[in-house]
Amino acid sequence: MTVTNGHNGQQQPDLQVAGSNLNVVLTGKETVVLEDRPIPECPKGYVLVKVMATGICGSDLSYYTKGGIGTTVVKAPLVLGHESCGVICKVGEGSGQFNYCVNDSYMASPPTGEWNRLDGTLCQWYACPAVNAVPVPETIAWEQSGSIQPLAIAVQVGRRARLRAHQTVAVFGCGPLGLLCMAVAKAYGARKILAVDISESRLKFAKSYAATHTFSPPRRGQDDEIMSWNRQVAADVLKEIGEEAGVDVVIEASGAEPCMQLGVHLLRTGGTYLQAGMGAPLASFPVLQIATRELNVFGTLRYTSGCFQDAIDLVARGLVDLKPLVTRTFPLKQSEDAFKAVKAGSEIKIVIMNQQ
Amino acid sequence: MTVTNGHNGQQQPDLQVAGSNLNVVLTGKETVVLEDRPIPECPKGYVLVKVMATGICGSDLSYYTKGGIGTTVVKAPLVLGHESCGVICKVGEGSGQFNYCVNDSYMASPPTGEWNRLDGTLCQWYACPAVNAVPVPETIAWEQSGSIQPLAIAVQVGRRARLRAHQTVAVFGCGPLGLLCMAVAKAYGARKILAVDISESRLKFAKSYAATHTFSPPRRGQDDEIMSWNRQVAADVLKEIGEEAGVDVVIEASGAEPCMQLGVHLLRTGGTYLQAGMGAPLASFPVLQIATRELNVFGTLRYTSGCFQDAIDLVARGLVDLKPLVTRTFPLKQSEDAFKAVKAGSEIKIVIMNQQ
Amino acid sequence: MTVTNGHNGQQQPDLQVAGSNLNVVLTGKETVVLEDRPIPECPKGYVLVKVMATGICGSDLSYYTKGGIGTTVVKAPLVLGHESCGVICKVGEGSGQFNYCVNDSYMASPPTGEWNRLDGTLCQWYACPAVNAVPVPETIAWEQSGSIQPLAIAVQVGRRARLRAHQTVAVFGCGPLGLLCMAVAKAYGARKILAVDISESRLKFAKSYAATHTFSPPRRGQDDEIMSWNRQVAADVLKEIGEEAGVDVVIEASGAEPCMQLGVHLLRTGGTYLQAGMGAPLASFPVLQIATRELNVFGTLRYTSGCFQDAIDLVARGLVDLKPLVTRTFPLKQSEDAFKAVKAGSEIKIVIMNQQ
Amino acid sequence: MTVTNGHNGQQQPDLQVAGSNLNVVLTGKETVVLEDRPIPECPKGYVLVKVMATGICGSDLSYYTKGGIGTTVVKAPLVLGHESCGVICKVGEGSGQFNYCVNDSYMASPPTGEWNRLDGTLCQWYACPAVNAVPVPETIAWEQSGSIQPLAIAVQVGRRARLRAHQTVAVFGCGPLGLLCMAVAKAYGARKILAVDISESRLKFAKSYAATHTFSPPRRGQDDEIMSWNRQVAADVLKEIGEEAGVDVVIEASGAEPCMQLGVHLLRTGGTYLQAGMGAPLASFPVLQIATRELNVFGTLRYTSGCFQDAIDLVARGLVDLKPLVTRTFPLKQSEDAFKAVKAGSEIKIVIMNQQ
Repeated sequence: MTVTNGHNGQQQPDLQVAGSNLNVVLTGKETVVLEDRPIPECPKGYVLVKVMATGICGSDLSYYTKGGIGTTVVKAPLVLGHESCGVICKVGEGSGQFNYCVNDSYMASPPTGEWNRLDGTLCQWYACPAVNAVPVPETIAWEQSGSIQPLAIAVQVGRRARLRAHQTVAVFGCGPLGLLCMAVAKAYGARKILAVDISESRLKFAKSYAATHTFSPPRRGQDDEIMSWNRQVAADVLKEIGEEAGVDVVIEASGAEPCMQLGVHLLRTGGTYLQAGMGAPLASFPVLQIATRELNVFGTLRYTSGCFQDAIDLVARGLVDLKPLVTRTFPLKQSEDAFKAVKAGSEIKIVIMNQQ
Repeated sequence: MTVTNGHNGQQQPDLQVAGSNLNVVLTGKETVVLEDRPIPECPKGYVLVKVMATGICGSDLSYYTKGGIGTTVVKAPLVLGHESCGVICKVGEGSGQFNYCVNDSYMASPPTGEWNRLDGTLCQWYACPAVNAVPVPETIAWEQSGSIQPLAIAVQVGRRARLRAHQTVAVFGCGPLGLLCMAVAKAYGARKILAVDISESRLKFAKSYAATHTFSPPRRGQDDEIMSWNRQVAADVLKEIGEEAGVDVVIEASGAEPCMQLGVHLLRTGGTYLQAGMGAPLASFPVLQIATRELNVFGTLRYTSGCFQDAIDLVARGLVDLKPLVTRTFPLKQSEDAFKAVKAGSEIKIVIMNQQ
Repeated sequence: MTVTNGHNGQQQPDLQVAGSNLNVVLTGKETVVLEDRPIPECPKGYVLVKVMATGICGSDLSYYTKGGIGTTVVKAPLVLGHESCGVICKVGEGSGQFNYCVNDSYMASPPTGEWNRLDGTLCQWYACPAVNAVPVPETIAWEQSGSIQPLAIAVQVGRRARLRAHQTVAVFGCGPLGLLCMAVAKAYGARKILAVDISESRLKFAKSYAATHTFSPPRRGQDDEIMSWNRQVAADVLKEIGEEAGVDVVIEASGAEPCMQLGVHLLRTGGTYLQAGMGAPLASFPVLQIATRELNVFGTLRYTSGCFQDAIDLVARGLVDLKPLVTRTFPLKQSEDAFKAVKAGSEIKIVIMNQQ
Repeated sequence: MTVTNGHNGQQQPDLQVAGSNLNVVLTGKETVVLEDRPIPECPKGYVLVKVMATGICGSDLSYYTKGGIGTTVVKAPLVLGHESCGVICKVGEGSGQFNYCVNDSYMASPPTGEWNRLDGTLCQWYACPAVNAVPVPETIAWEQSGSIQPLAIAVQVGRRARLRAHQTVAVFGCGPLGLLCMAVAKAYGARKILAVDISESRLKFAKSYAATHTFSPPRRGQDDEIMSWNRQVAADVLKEIGEEAGVDVVIEASGAEPCMQLGVHLLRTGGTYLQAGMGAPLASFPVLQIATRELNVFGTLRYTSGCFQDAIDLVARGLVDLKPLVTRTFPLKQSEDAFKAVKAGSEIKIVIMNQQ
């Protein structure tokens, strides 16, 4: 795709391979510095990308606040960022088989499998494996192209949960992933979508965005027996939404143990539970019910072949709108402010504009 | 099927609807009495069965020792037994559509859904819904016909776990259900079958019966961190059986929390975990790994349409041999001794001969 | 659902079980007579329905014009009609388990399996097996309730073709079934929907209704070799719609041999072909390509459990609009005119109002 | 796998990369010449193989007798052969990721997708892409390792036909592919396997090999209407094998139109038809029945990821025995005689020993 006429009416970037290459480098806990590095080479099988926008997600925040994620500890300075879009300015030898043209806009992620040991895309120029560059139509603005990666994850959730039309779906957690799972469920024709969260403002947003019903679970009292409390809370909300027999699918996108427990109780016999949220290594889980009610429990991690294409398809056809999610943008030079804003937690999705 | 020539060479029962109808009635914890009741009517849609043999299972034992099962408490005298075979001696009006002939041997269970509120089959005459009577070929001896029900459950395990040829399968628990799951896996062409139990004698039996490998997990020390201990134990046994990447399928047939935890660690990425054993309502479960390793977790309960037929097919074709499992039989009149022997736990499967 | 306040603003019918019971009886080829028959009894397991509207379909037309369908010949007077809706006015004993209330509106079909040997629903009062009565919300007008049956068939097409979001779908035949298949594909999130027909006016309607692209295949010349002609025509249209590798799904809803042949050529390797149209017993079919391109071919007939509910769901949520399809209605008393209009073929869907 | 101790007791080949490299070159219809060519280089990503045995299949025969296959015409001299096994004698740079060791025996096919434009493996030394080399245990003799490729195709048939235990399967055609499909069905636990062929001797072999029942269809008379004749023939054989409702799966491995037609008639409603045989581009096919009986028709071509490994697994575990199929071997130098013997059609499978 040529971008001569600009991208969605926005100013067309200068595609000459020249200028600064500011990188946002994590050097310690809650410490990022801007570093001007040489524009990278474009080796065989790679494309050189002028990066335009980069979404910040929970794992970036974990790196920023904790200096690592899960059991991974960052030991050397690391460039953050992995949800990015940009314009191809140079094509490495041997990338021709993918038909990349200079000037194509694209959406890319660093190669998975080693993404936390590689410098990321919070920079101005990035050499990306050609196989990771997926074309984006010019009708999608840079801010939204930069947040397609989490939608690709939601598409994978939809695949793993076997989401399809006519189903009733409950989603736990109204962060970006939960909201995008609702959006995918809606695009696929789900009959009812119940958003579950403890934040009323997030529920309100979910309702305006993709949910048909919302639910804020009460807090369990110290004397409430876990199983009977969950049984009762589930029965109440299911009655309220007119699905006494339980919902078809539960998507757990919070990683919180109480959500897992309530989620299982919301399911109909034979229903499907999808674990997308990342929590503690062990959780107190109603395993017995998996057997006695013949449930199906699936896990999901990132994306598989075609998820980016499907995500772009949803946005391009207007079935999913990413605009309302991007509640704030920052220029690359103010990345530190961006991380602080992510940490504050009041925005839904923050995107950094890499050339500003 | 006529049984004129006897059943596997055994004495052909007198099919006249007459004689005693001794019932084994649970009247209190660890108390069963023999009661001679009238031979039941054969209502519309039912067949009257002369019961020949009845397997005793874990739920019968729970009724016997605890006077109930799970949250169910027996409040009135109850006839136990639900794994039975016998000969049809009378056909109720309206059962003709199933083509039941008087003298057919059959294998039946009381109707599911209410089985613990109905008197069971530990008696001499039983009126069974015609739809629950499944024909058994005469080549299968009564003792084995009386233990087809647990095999039908193992067939359902195979369905839910999507068991198929070429797979590597680990089975936790070498009781009757675990052993029959191994037998089904073998019949379906599994490549390797790892039996896991803490009893060396049970493992030895499993190896002689259907397993290709066995494993007795060590006991976790107080200071061992749960996750790293499981990771290490799993890595060790997987290396030993030459499946470093993990097994395709884990069948958890013990209901014990440590087995669930180790089971998840034995799986390859994308593998399938099947919960068949019944344990506590909540268990400490590696839910995070379901997400990060994209696992599939299925539950199973009893059987679905066609499971009995498939179970009988396996026995009739010699792909599963029930004989070695039935390590002891008792006449109906010594049912109390049978229950005591089940409680002692040294037999694999005990069958009661209802006409003796 | 009570219908006290009328059905979508329309006049509420008098629900007293009284009045005439005019039946539209086929007595010979192209001969139907009106016969006033007694209002039927409401036996056990049945509900008595005041029929409000009945769609006429291709099989009704075949009965009317040929006095039979396929190898079935009508030998005695037969009441036609099987796509009907109405109001339950009486509930037979034993139907209580379905919770039918007098005055519920419902949508029903005569029991399948024997439908062509039973009198149909082109009458004013019909005793329907309770199990075949599916509730319809009052927001759906009678004319549309009377055409839900073909939508249920399209839902079953969607199930059998494994239709889902992101797919590219080609539908051969723009009659009611083809159009409804397109509507279902659209509701399920299909990416592109190509309507194929030789009638430009039907294609125009399809485009306005649910298709994203249309195609009117040229006529094959006498000298054109079948396979190379199909290959070329397929390549041309695939290029035009930007799907050079072929579409994911072909739904053949015409029953015409040339459509079957072209349909197979439109598919991508590994694609899915769904035969919904009924044609000759044998057709010249590219069986070799099924093997060499690893295609999946499925057939579909009527509906399975839940299809009516899913169809009603689509209409109730506004995902499928049946209104544009019902291009003409007739009062029951002018049923003969209705059949003539169906035969003329210029309407898309004709519905008879049974109480007029 | 080291082969130091020989392969199944056979003489261990000299693994020095030296000696002649005789190639069997097709130079015209029914004309092959032996040509001594230089031992090939072993480029990056390749392994150099001393070829030990090569099975001859129907496509080789087509090349030999017709100078091409399907629409493909051989225009330049071509080395035939694609079912081969051998010993790795050299490993190209960059193949290390597959852990190939010099001296490993392996089983390989030239890369698919272009196999008919590349010189094949009927030679003494072959440079094979490392990714196509699959290890074979030393318990499998060379003759059988050289016929694993058709078993891999049968494994793919099993995958595409969703073959599993308990099913009834009819296989049309008792050539090597049909026989191996029966063997796979048996290994997977099929309940009944009906072999269909017009050759009584082939049926007799099938019965001794893997089939439980056999059937030689009568010849259809000129006056027999196709559909009613098929219906009757199918009903007769189904009654004979006790499967009046039809079989679960039909595997068509002959490519002959009458077999396709009868195959569809043998299926139960909802059954699965698998087209494996290659026939004419168009065939007169009962398409209407696909719709009215909701059949599933799948095609298959060669193999997919893991099929060779599964095939080797079946042979290594003794679930499939290839020995009885290899009815004759020829030394490479007598390849012309081998082709003549294949053409004569009296052998089941002919294997050429490449080093003799």
